[in-house]
Amino acid sequence: MYLSIDFGGTRTRVGWFSDSMTLLTRDEGLSHTDEAPEAVIQRLIDLARRVVPPGQKPAAIGICAPGPQAYTGLILHANTLPGWDRVPLAQRISEAFSNAPTHMENDANLAALAESQMGAARGCDPALYLTISTGIGGGAILNGQLFTGWRGLAIEPGHIKFMALDGRYYSLEALASGTAIGRQARERLATSDMPSTLRGLALVDGKAVGEAAQAGDELARTVVQEAGRWLGLGLVALVHCFNPQVVVIGGSVTNLGELILAPARAVLAELLIDPAFNHPDLLKLAALGDDVCLIGAALQARRKSVAAG
Amino acid sequence: MYLSIDFGGTRTRVGWFSDSMTLLTRDEGLSHTDEAPEAVIQRLIDLARRVVPPGQKPAAIGICAPGPQAYTGLILHANTLPGWDRVPLAQRISEAFSNAPTHMENDANLAALAESQMGAARGCDPALYLTISTGIGGGAILNGQLFTGWRGLAIEPGHIKFMALDGRYYSLEALASGTAIGRQARERLATSDMPSTLRGLALVDGKAVGEAAQAGDELARTVVQEAGRWLGLGLVALVHCFNPQVVVIGGSVTNLGELILAPARAVLAELLIDPAFNHPDLLKLAALGDDVCLIGAALQARRKSVAAG
Repeated sequence: MYLSIDFGGTRTRVGWFSDSMTLLTRDEGLSHTDEAPEAVIQRLIDLARRVVPPGQKPAAIGICAPGPQAYTGLILHANTLPGWDRVPLAQRISEAFSNAPTHMENDANLAALAESQMGAARGCDPALYLTISTGIGGGAILNGQLFTGWRGLAIEPGHIKFMALDGRYYSLEALASGTAIGRQARERLATSDMPSTLRGLALVDGKAVGEAAQAGDELARTVVQEAGRWLGLGLVALVHCFNPQVVVIGGSVTNLGELILAPARAVLAELLIDPAFNHPDLLKLAALGDDVCLIGAALQARRKSVAAG
Repeated sequence: MYLSIDFGGTRTRVGWFSDSMTLLTRDEGLSHTDEAPEAVIQRLIDLARRVVPPGQKPAAIGICAPGPQAYTGLILHANTLPGWDRVPLAQRISEAFSNAPTHMENDANLAALAESQMGAARGCDPALYLTISTGIGGGAILNGQLFTGWRGLAIEPGHIKFMALDGRYYSLEALASGTAIGRQARERLATSDMPSTLRGLALVDGKAVGEAAQAGDELARTVVQEAGRWLGLGLVALVHCFNPQVVVIGGSVTNLGELILAPARAVLAELLIDPAFNHPDLLKLAALGDDVCLIGAALQARRKSVAAG
């Protein structure tokens, strides 16, 4: 049996998994990361205890945490966890559960593993995973293994840089994330007279722009399509580098569906050097929903403990 | 003992390697790829026979060939081999040497393997290799293995696309190869009055621009520096994707040394999201010289035959 913990900036999910990776019990609560790390960790442990049956000990614990360097077992720094600096989260959790071995990993990496084993990328190798919401993160399964690079920092597709028409460099994240979609819509509202349903809103963020685009608002659609073309340019880099069998795309921006994917597919089809890199199912939407990281952390805990013992 | 054949568009190199990968005998000749494939293959076999000692049979044969899909054993198409279409090169060579198993691979992939085992990337993993000359090719060693992707098409960094100030998309190859350096110098000579030693030359190609830049010509230096910055932007994408321990750079353009590498390093230092991705030895010049692909093909032949038997 495995304990899995998905520790996010807003919400923490916990799950108790069978050896065959069935989710037997799950629970969740707010992370309250504005409090001191020690209080946050204690709340997380209390939440996890609620899914571990009395008298049982997990064979291993998988932890999903934000930040690129989660693999070290320390949370070094993460945008969503201000004030956390080298907090030994994995060790504290291990101590709370009879010193069970713990395996902590970055959220996008674990989502890649979960989609590859049990979701949209099943049977595909290499499989890439992109999550597009506030930012853009990524993960890769290569030769059946989670690929994390030299210092565990791969894969960060959101930080591929492009030059835009103003001659400055922008990251893919600054061009195609939900945050970018909101910002680009606000700039366009301020600098044009184009009519838009967005003009009446107090808050024009990525979500509002997405909803307006889906309702047919022309300005919102233009902004989303432009983000989709930048996404396509990012995919051109990834596909030429990895020659993946599939690229699974998750995160809240995927709610836009073909509104953002169609322009990305068009740029891919136009700019890939050879059609052999492409095929109709190259881009797939993620399949596992909100529990994707919980499942990924459980899978990683099982893999690591099988490999170790 | 292993037979290795580096079949290039201009020149073919052959080598006879000991089991411990010492190059015992080597030879080379022109490929004459303007002739019919059958004549070219026969000449290649005759050349290879000159390094195989009488009465001996290779345990395996490694073949280095141009074109992204060399791994299939067929040469599908390659810019340097016009008229070659699905020629079963590997099979023909096997038949000529007592049906010894043959392993054919793309040149940049084999160069990556050679540099990783015996050259500038020794002991480094992940290791990326870039070759910059007429075009830009690449290879990667991940978890000790040559990584070739789903259909053997990885890694093609030359085809990462960027937008330039004219709003059009350009491949890294069109911005930073030797060919690009020549073309950009010719454009600059035609559209500016800037004095340059290049103005007297009948042929302004990458080599001429490189020599002028090394002699201090201001226009040539500007062109090379610009190519170096684009190379840096390509490296920003590769380093964020792979988090490599080393990127080995080979090919004729590396003769420019720091003239092209310094601007690339500056862009990397400026645009990497975290200094943890970077370190002073991240970029290294290739170490194995002209025999790099011959060595790589021999290594791959040994690996494959050890794995098979």
